[in-house]
Amino acid sequence: MNSFAFYNPTRIYYGKGQVETHLAEEVRHYGKKVLLVYGGGSIKKFGLYDKVMASLRDANAEVFELSGIEPNPRLSTVHKGVAICKEQGIDLVLAVGGGSVLDASKAIAAGALYDGDVWDFYATRKRPEAALALGTILTLSATGSEMNSGGVITNWETKQKIGSGSVHTFPKFSFCDPENTFTVSREQTTYGLVDMFSHVLESYFSHTPNTDLQERLCESVMQTILAHADAVLENPTDYDEREAIMYCGTMALNGMISMGMQGDWATHAIEHEISAFHDIPHGGGLAIIFPNWMKHVLDSGTARFAQLATRVFGIEQGSKSERDLALAGIDAVRAFFDRIGAPRTLAHYGIGRDHFNEMAAHATRYGTVGQYKKLTAADVIAILEACV
Amino acid sequence: MNSFAFYNPTRIYYGKGQVETHLAEEVRHYGKKVLLVYGGGSIKKFGLYDKVMASLRDANAEVFELSGIEPNPRLSTVHKGVAICKEQGIDLVLAVGGGSVLDASKAIAAGALYDGDVWDFYATRKRPEAALALGTILTLSATGSEMNSGGVITNWETKQKIGSGSVHTFPKFSFCDPENTFTVSREQTTYGLVDMFSHVLESYFSHTPNTDLQERLCESVMQTILAHADAVLENPTDYDEREAIMYCGTMALNGMISMGMQGDWATHAIEHEISAFHDIPHGGGLAIIFPNWMKHVLDSGTARFAQLATRVFGIEQGSKSERDLALAGIDAVRAFFDRIGAPRTLAHYGIGRDHFNEMAAHATRYGTVGQYKKLTAADVIAILEACV
Repeated sequence: MNSFAFYNPTRIYYGKGQVETHLAEEVRHYGKKVLLVYGGGSIKKFGLYDKVMASLRDANAEVFELSGIEPNPRLSTVHKGVAICKEQGIDLVLAVGGGSVLDASKAIAAGALYDGDVWDFYATRKRPEAALALGTILTLSATGSEMNSGGVITNWETKQKIGSGSVHTFPKFSFCDPENTFTVSREQTTYGLVDMFSHVLESYFSHTPNTDLQERLCESVMQTILAHADAVLENPTDYDEREAIMYCGTMALNGMISMGMQGDWATHAIEHEISAFHDIPHGGGLAIIFPNWMKHVLDSGTARFAQLATRVFGIEQGSKSERDLALAGIDAVRAFFDRIGAPRTLAHYGIGRDHFNEMAAHATRYGTVGQYKKLTAADVIAILEACV
Repeated sequence: MNSFAFYNPTRIYYGKGQVETHLAEEVRHYGKKVLLVYGGGSIKKFGLYDKVMASLRDANAEVFELSGIEPNPRLSTVHKGVAICKEQGIDLVLAVGGGSVLDASKAIAAGALYDGDVWDFYATRKRPEAALALGTILTLSATGSEMNSGGVITNWETKQKIGSGSVHTFPKFSFCDPENTFTVSREQTTYGLVDMFSHVLESYFSHTPNTDLQERLCESVMQTILAHADAVLENPTDYDEREAIMYCGTMALNGMISMGMQGDWATHAIEHEISAFHDIPHGGGLAIIFPNWMKHVLDSGTARFAQLATRVFGIEQGSKSERDLALAGIDAVRAFFDRIGAPRTLAHYGIGRDHFNEMAAHATRYGTVGQYKKLTAADVIAILEACV
């Protein structure tokens, strides 16, 4: 494995009723003025908003609100949050929602203690030197943002969707109650499943030597997602199924399964380019790109693909060559995404070839993109062409 | 799974040369006065002591030393460390060694900020409310103490060996360089392998429902230990083998593979009783007890034993009943311990039945011990009898 330093200081609460029991005490640790950040207001429909407000009253907090965080959260909205923090002297940013709300809240927390434009942390390699305390209450399992320091923001004006993270943007605490995901739509559940499965694939396709345990940990998460995906879609209010998937989403991207292992992340980079121009759901974009990325890079190392086929999908090698076994593994990923209703082509979203050159140029702005195969702009265009 | 709160704030460094690169900066965060804690002085023979002292000089630290920490570290030695901390106003306890040195250092760090006797934290359910900063440099892979808050101390006067832990006794930082384990003897390496494998078993044998991912994570660690155990014993200076095993040791007991899962821990409790009277190596005691514990509790749930047999040891069910498959799994654990040279019986250490009644009484002092089956004193004696 590679040399590494691992640090993940998020205190994560899992289970029913943890918000009622522990939120007020957590808030009290960080101060009086709380910025509550959420999305379109669904948290009011299913009662979570009232529960959170009750805990904030218990904590004697003064609450400010920023609602309307978009899927693919926008810089313009982050700016509003930063302004509230600076004007009101906010102590704690409390994000209640899915990955978009959490990612926007990370940007707000970092921007609040920065004199320049928070976009600097995304558009350049500059990283924040401090951030406000951040807490989260997760309502959609997908991004893993509840237990990592990263977040992705879209600058709609410049058509840039870029990720960033720093040691200062780990949530101090996160609450994961499976019941808070009961009302997530079938479509959003599917996108979440694709997103978490993709996070594991991004780590798993790696040339780092001597990572036996990391590979098995990755395979464990993928096997568990596969084992519960159908059931969670069929029975969206089954506590155990929502819990199993929620936990997979957290473990898929909290760094614990991939320490010292160089991941790839080209598929995410390419998806960000598509979303920056077309504002499609992240999980939908990933479902379209990943199998095509796999075929494109297969010859950079068939063994890991063959291992995916046998260990995760239970495909027997029989008389197949390693390459054919690897291809069967890629087909199995595609078949899984099909089965849960994820899209196959960009045409699904009415997207054509219009911006492929710009997307490829931006994805490769630091040279190549990805690690399993270092993709040039021409590679990115070839993958995008296969997605049409 | 059970509701849980997970928090592990240890910053862990893995790899060659990390001490030279990062130790001084870590020390600087915590103050000037450092208590260096180590064991019998082997760290001087292989050059680690000089490396550490060079970093401490870089950090302008004033260094105090406590050497001679015993395997099964003793309360009397911990008291010496606590006295130095109180007299000298130590800022940071720096443990360089294996699990015993690390566990003693946790006790010293907690005792230093406590007015009473640190033994209170072990003999009663009282927990520390603060502790000095603690850093560790691991030289023996086994206990996982480098990335958890727990530790075990022996009171030789009262014949008690008891574990304790609190949120304050996580190391702030730990350095794991596989090269620092190259000189560990074959026997100690074997004991380390048994210890880490046992830690996973203690988590794995659980009745907590809906823990598919946790079970797979546990199986991953056990499979990886099995895959590297022979090689690390044959080639003790093979970097990759030492690294794979070191990483298994950390992951086996940093809490990441078993969140929300009620473990058993009766085998550890029983081993502590034996060690408290006879001062045998912890890993040796575990190797003797675990297969006998397994047979004793088998009928409290054969399915998990059968799963161990198939998923970890690759035993095919064929025409076997679930119970026979489970028994084959237990035999496979015993065969693994045999293969790596771990002892089978208490007679190996010249131990007879002398103190079985006292041991069983103390192991069950809070009622029963263990969770997979709640063992009474009579159960503990039956298991000890099987170990003779």
